[in-house]
Amino acid sequence: MKVAYVGAAPKSAEEVERRRRLLQQWAAPGTTIEMAYATEGPASIESMYEEYIAIPQYAKNMVRLEREGFDAAIVGCAGDPGLDAYRELCTNMLVVGPGMSGFHAAALLGRKFTLLTVADSMIASSYELIQKSGLASSVASVLAVNIPVLELSHNRTQTLEKLVRIGRDAIEKDRADVLVLGCMSMAFLQVADDMQKLLGIPVINPAKAALKLAESLVSCGSKLTNGKAKTIEERIGNQK
Amino acid sequence: MKVAYVGAAPKSAEEVERRRRLLQQWAAPGTTIEMAYATEGPASIESMYEEYIAIPQYAKNMVRLEREGFDAAIVGCAGDPGLDAYRELCTNMLVVGPGMSGFHAAALLGRKFTLLTVADSMIASSYELIQKSGLASSVASVLAVNIPVLELSHNRTQTLEKLVRIGRDAIEKDRADVLVLGCMSMAFLQVADDMQKLLGIPVINPAKAALKLAESLVSCGSKLTNGKAKTIEERIGNQK
Amino acid sequence: MKVAYVGAAPKSAEEVERRRRLLQQWAAPGTTIEMAYATEGPASIESMYEEYIAIPQYAKNMVRLEREGFDAAIVGCAGDPGLDAYRELCTNMLVVGPGMSGFHAAALLGRKFTLLTVADSMIASSYELIQKSGLASSVASVLAVNIPVLELSHNRTQTLEKLVRIGRDAIEKDRADVLVLGCMSMAFLQVADDMQKLLGIPVINPAKAALKLAESLVSCGSKLTNGKAKTIEERIGNQK
Amino acid sequence: MKVAYVGAAPKSAEEVERRRRLLQQWAAPGTTIEMAYATEGPASIESMYEEYIAIPQYAKNMVRLEREGFDAAIVGCAGDPGLDAYRELCTNMLVVGPGMSGFHAAALLGRKFTLLTVADSMIASSYELIQKSGLASSVASVLAVNIPVLELSHNRTQTLEKLVRIGRDAIEKDRADVLVLGCMSMAFLQVADDMQKLLGIPVINPAKAALKLAESLVSCGSKLTNGKAKTIEERIGNQK
Amino acid sequence: MKVAYVGAAPKSAEEVERRRRLLQQWAAPGTTIEMAYATEGPASIESMYEEYIAIPQYAKNMVRLEREGFDAAIVGCAGDPGLDAYRELCTNMLVVGPGMSGFHAAALLGRKFTLLTVADSMIASSYELIQKSGLASSVASVLAVNIPVLELSHNRTQTLEKLVRIGRDAIEKDRADVLVLGCMSMAFLQVADDMQKLLGIPVINPAKAALKLAESLVSCGSKLTNGKAKTIEERIGNQK
Amino acid sequence: MKVAYVGAAPKSAEEVERRRRLLQQWAAPGTTIEMAYATEGPASIESMYEEYIAIPQYAKNMVRLEREGFDAAIVGCAGDPGLDAYRELCTNMLVVGPGMSGFHAAALLGRKFTLLTVADSMIASSYELIQKSGLASSVASVLAVNIPVLELSHNRTQTLEKLVRIGRDAIEKDRADVLVLGCMSMAFLQVADDMQKLLGIPVINPAKAALKLAESLVSCGSKLTNGKAKTIEERIGNQK
Repeated sequence: MKVAYVGAAPKSAEEVERRRRLLQQWAAPGTTIEMAYATEGPASIESMYEEYIAIPQYAKNMVRLEREGFDAAIVGCAGDPGLDAYRELCTNMLVVGPGMSGFHAAALLGRKFTLLTVADSMIASSYELIQKSGLASSVASVLAVNIPVLELSHNRTQTLEKLVRIGRDAIEKDRADVLVLGCMSMAFLQVADDMQKLLGIPVINPAKAALKLAESLVSCGSKLTNGKAKTIEERIGNQK
Repeated sequence: MKVAYVGAAPKSAEEVERRRRLLQQWAAPGTTIEMAYATEGPASIESMYEEYIAIPQYAKNMVRLEREGFDAAIVGCAGDPGLDAYRELCTNMLVVGPGMSGFHAAALLGRKFTLLTVADSMIASSYELIQKSGLASSVASVLAVNIPVLELSHNRTQTLEKLVRIGRDAIEKDRADVLVLGCMSMAFLQVADDMQKLLGIPVINPAKAALKLAESLVSCGSKLTNGKAKTIEERIGNQK
Repeated sequence: MKVAYVGAAPKSAEEVERRRRLLQQWAAPGTTIEMAYATEGPASIESMYEEYIAIPQYAKNMVRLEREGFDAAIVGCAGDPGLDAYRELCTNMLVVGPGMSGFHAAALLGRKFTLLTVADSMIASSYELIQKSGLASSVASVLAVNIPVLELSHNRTQTLEKLVRIGRDAIEKDRADVLVLGCMSMAFLQVADDMQKLLGIPVINPAKAALKLAESLVSCGSKLTNGKAKTIEERIGNQK
Repeated sequence: MKVAYVGAAPKSAEEVERRRRLLQQWAAPGTTIEMAYATEGPASIESMYEEYIAIPQYAKNMVRLEREGFDAAIVGCAGDPGLDAYRELCTNMLVVGPGMSGFHAAALLGRKFTLLTVADSMIASSYELIQKSGLASSVASVLAVNIPVLELSHNRTQTLEKLVRIGRDAIEKDRADVLVLGCMSMAFLQVADDMQKLLGIPVINPAKAALKLAESLVSCGSKLTNGKAKTIEERIGNQK
Repeated sequence: MKVAYVGAAPKSAEEVERRRRLLQQWAAPGTTIEMAYATEGPASIESMYEEYIAIPQYAKNMVRLEREGFDAAIVGCAGDPGLDAYRELCTNMLVVGPGMSGFHAAALLGRKFTLLTVADSMIASSYELIQKSGLASSVASVLAVNIPVLELSHNRTQTLEKLVRIGRDAIEKDRADVLVLGCMSMAFLQVADDMQKLLGIPVINPAKAALKLAESLVSCGSKLTNGKAKTIEERIGNQK
Repeated sequence: MKVAYVGAAPKSAEEVERRRRLLQQWAAPGTTIEMAYATEGPASIESMYEEYIAIPQYAKNMVRLEREGFDAAIVGCAGDPGLDAYRELCTNMLVVGPGMSGFHAAALLGRKFTLLTVADSMIASSYELIQKSGLASSVASVLAVNIPVLELSHNRTQTLEKLVRIGRDAIEKDRADVLVLGCMSMAFLQVADDMQKLLGIPVINPAKAALKLAESLVSCGSKLTNGKAKTIEERIGNQK
């Protein structure tokens, strides 16, 4: 199975390779991971504006990857920007988002989950994303870490401490029984396992969840998502 | 009051001028309308993909219009693409969408509204837009006209007949007491008044609703939508 | 356009004239405001009982105003008492309530609003009114000021201070991004603009919102609200 | 236990006595029924307007009945007009409505109920009443019989036939497993038992349900509904 | 009327007789109470596992009681374990649960109720039970007493004090206007009346509510709950 | 990874072995499947009663399997009977149900799914199961095949034809874009792939979905589901 991870915010070659190795290590035997990172775009995605401007390049990548025979592609941003558009464009390649993958993994494991998002300014749109995924009734709360994305990995210990403190609040005040990390930089910082040990409840890494659920859904033979989509040629023809 | 209508799908100068005159005619005394149409982009917006790729140019226009001192801007597409992003970017200029304006006008006038959208393929995303506007409990149904956007105005009589027939279904089967047109080409075809006379219930023209509600909300002195938004300079600095 | 403001709780001629001047000042060019205040009834409306007993006189006024050719009428109480009844009775005159107008204005401007109501005893019925308006999913909270209606205007500074303090709670604890005043005495005290400056988010004055939305909706040509209503003569004939 | 049935639409002495005998026959040993019918008001209640204008006289009756030591009072209209107001006014006498009593009895007996209301024009407000009672998720549908209230009892056989036909639709198309009659004239026509035999599912008579639930709730020792209500003297003092 | 109380957790003969006397004392004239307690099973029910393993013996008892001509049976556990199954099995005997009876009694008496459950570990499943009863929109909160079931009655004063303290929280923080006891041991400890006096709002005893509502529903002539159920013989034949 | 499939309704050794081979064939490299079928119990599960009586033996099996070191266990019934109880009992072994697995797989692949259940009598409880899984807002409809479970496999062609016919209804009338099979006998009849080809939208086999999601969730390192559960010894001690 060939799975692509499509990143929006440009990263150094080292960081891209580090992330690829992690994904490859999480993958099932027989799954090959390829990275398709944008070479331009916002350095991080921390607003709806940045989510939206990442979409045109994502869309081009998705169409190319489907033509190259990929079985599945992961949108490399926890806000799942443009996911419904890629599902219109691709009829053979399954596209999943780490946002919705994390929410469903959480709902499969517990009764109420708390999403740990990056900043207060993302809380309202995070609720909208959960609602769009159909899981509004399974949310305990959305809490913000309030550490800028590009600083999250500078001091792993401090980030972990803050995540654990907020996670404990989620458990005690909001009665969450699962936590979901709401940012790909948190995901590749690999803090979920440590948090899980310290907090005693499942903590979902959205990158791993997106990969494992993509493998599952492809194995279920359910690549086709929308048999009625117009071909990309027709759509491109619509553009002046 | 200065209000801009920001169009995504390029139109001929004649059509743009025709639409401007209609908006100007609907405007309150003292309101000036300016048109800001995209010069490139999809010829029509009939999919989520086309909605998303229209956003970057919309965003640039919105930032420019705010700097030029406009009081309000209307997103020229019934799907309100990128509205939350423009509200992040603009702190002095109010941005409204014809989608949400039409839904709220309908909910203010009746108990259950039916949205008449362009095509079957837009029904699912239309429900998501209504849900995002907070009005899911006021929808009677979303029905599709299934006439391509660019053909809607070729035969006005035929389009009106089909709209009336579907509207009657909405009233009789889904118990709608208000209808909302879900497409700007329908809006500028000016069929709402005819439909209203033939059907006996309010029919909302989303272009007019967006303009009149924008005027109302600005008069309420409520231009500021998000006092905490970072400035556009900071956001642009985030882009590589 | 002729718009009537129909008050339920009797007021002094000076106060009625003061309110008329405010409404006239908010009105669009070409709009004439007339006041139709009850001469008997409760001195203030602070319970469901007082809302209900105001309805029969409201209904008579509404029928009279429609016959006199008014385009729109505003129910002069933030609880919108009897609104659905006046919409049954009037087929040419649009009737709006400041409650639902304020809620929709708030939902058009932000994601979650907090309603500032008069007293703790009105909180439960305020939620019911929001639910009836179809906007339950857009509420952050309903908070009570707990100053009796007739004392609100005695000490404007103290009232404003309390409103700002509670508004700050709404923003910080309930994540409201818009506030709505839930009482006509607050509305005509003209504290919304001051609150908006101090708090940095939109604050909706329900009297102004009702007037501006009424003007918008009439301009949309949507006066008719229920084409199937029996005439008032038939209804009156039903009374023994 | 003393229970009053408070009627809004004036009826002949014979009809009032016939209804009293039915209620007395349904009552538990030890319960005494008294009738308190309005002497003026609409001949029947078939609109929100008629519901509202019945409230002031209802309220006076409720206050009087509480002073006379009644344990419970039933609002004699299936729309429960003004119920929240009487609960503000009365602190020792329990007030119940046949609407909410029928809905809760139905929800206690099955999974989804259909309400059979009088006319198409009452369907929207019936959904609002069910929502106010907290049982929106238990409704299968609201269907209208479309026989005017005053004609329902002229031809009992024909009314029963129509009710059974519509009830069968509710079962087959809407998957209702309980039916609720939505009109006091239907209730006192005593068709529920016949319908139950013919249709094979429970059919709730709202008059009987209101009486039996009132007896239950009083026996539970739960007369007090709102310990914080101001006394009626204070409220009356509020009226000019 | 013959009503059976079917207990799951075995109790001493004295305790069973004490409970029977209480039920008999609450019953209407003409109602006879019989107790059908399990002789084996968990000593108390404080988890979903214990609820489920109590069901097979409950089911046998329900089938026997229906054959013996009982009019109604009460499931003797506040979690209503297996209620939908007994309603499949019994077509002439009404089966009610104290959980759903308490929730509906609360919703009939107020606007928002708080359920006082035994332990933190039962909070999530309590919300599911309320949702299953159709009353999710009427819940203010579910709060846990955190006294093990078998210790609740050891120190009645201490239990009452804790219940009152938590009940006050429910009123002040969650704006509950009715409380529901969520455990049969609390029910038979007879603390509801004391709580009601101390707190000034209705407090529902689920055992009493189940009995009184069962009497009401049987009086309404609504014993049949599912006319299409296969007979128990057929079901037993399905077992290998 | 060791995964157990725990069946409730006894099956012949040949059928159990056939099902094991299918599961093993669907499993990822490195996953071993073991079957744990009940030797007594209902021949099929087609009612809530049969679901509940299967639980005690399921629970014993789950506890045993956890002690034997299994990583995950699948509840072998599409109604997920007792799932919350096994999650209380097992702290190291993940337990998943094919019901919730199918619903989440469907919600991950589309916007609205239709569940194809066995019989009309299971429709109401199927909605309750979907609601318990948190996915009520993603359901298009629940439709019944009305072929008894034990006859489903007698005539595969006829079963497939009926499923395709009902599936087409789901697509056209209820706007479903994914289908879920709601019965393990349908699952092991392997009709999902054929249906998918004929209907052009994803069709979820709940047995495969449960296996693939179990593998994913264990790989995510999220075996622990409830760190606070009492040990089974304590629970067993609670039984008399």
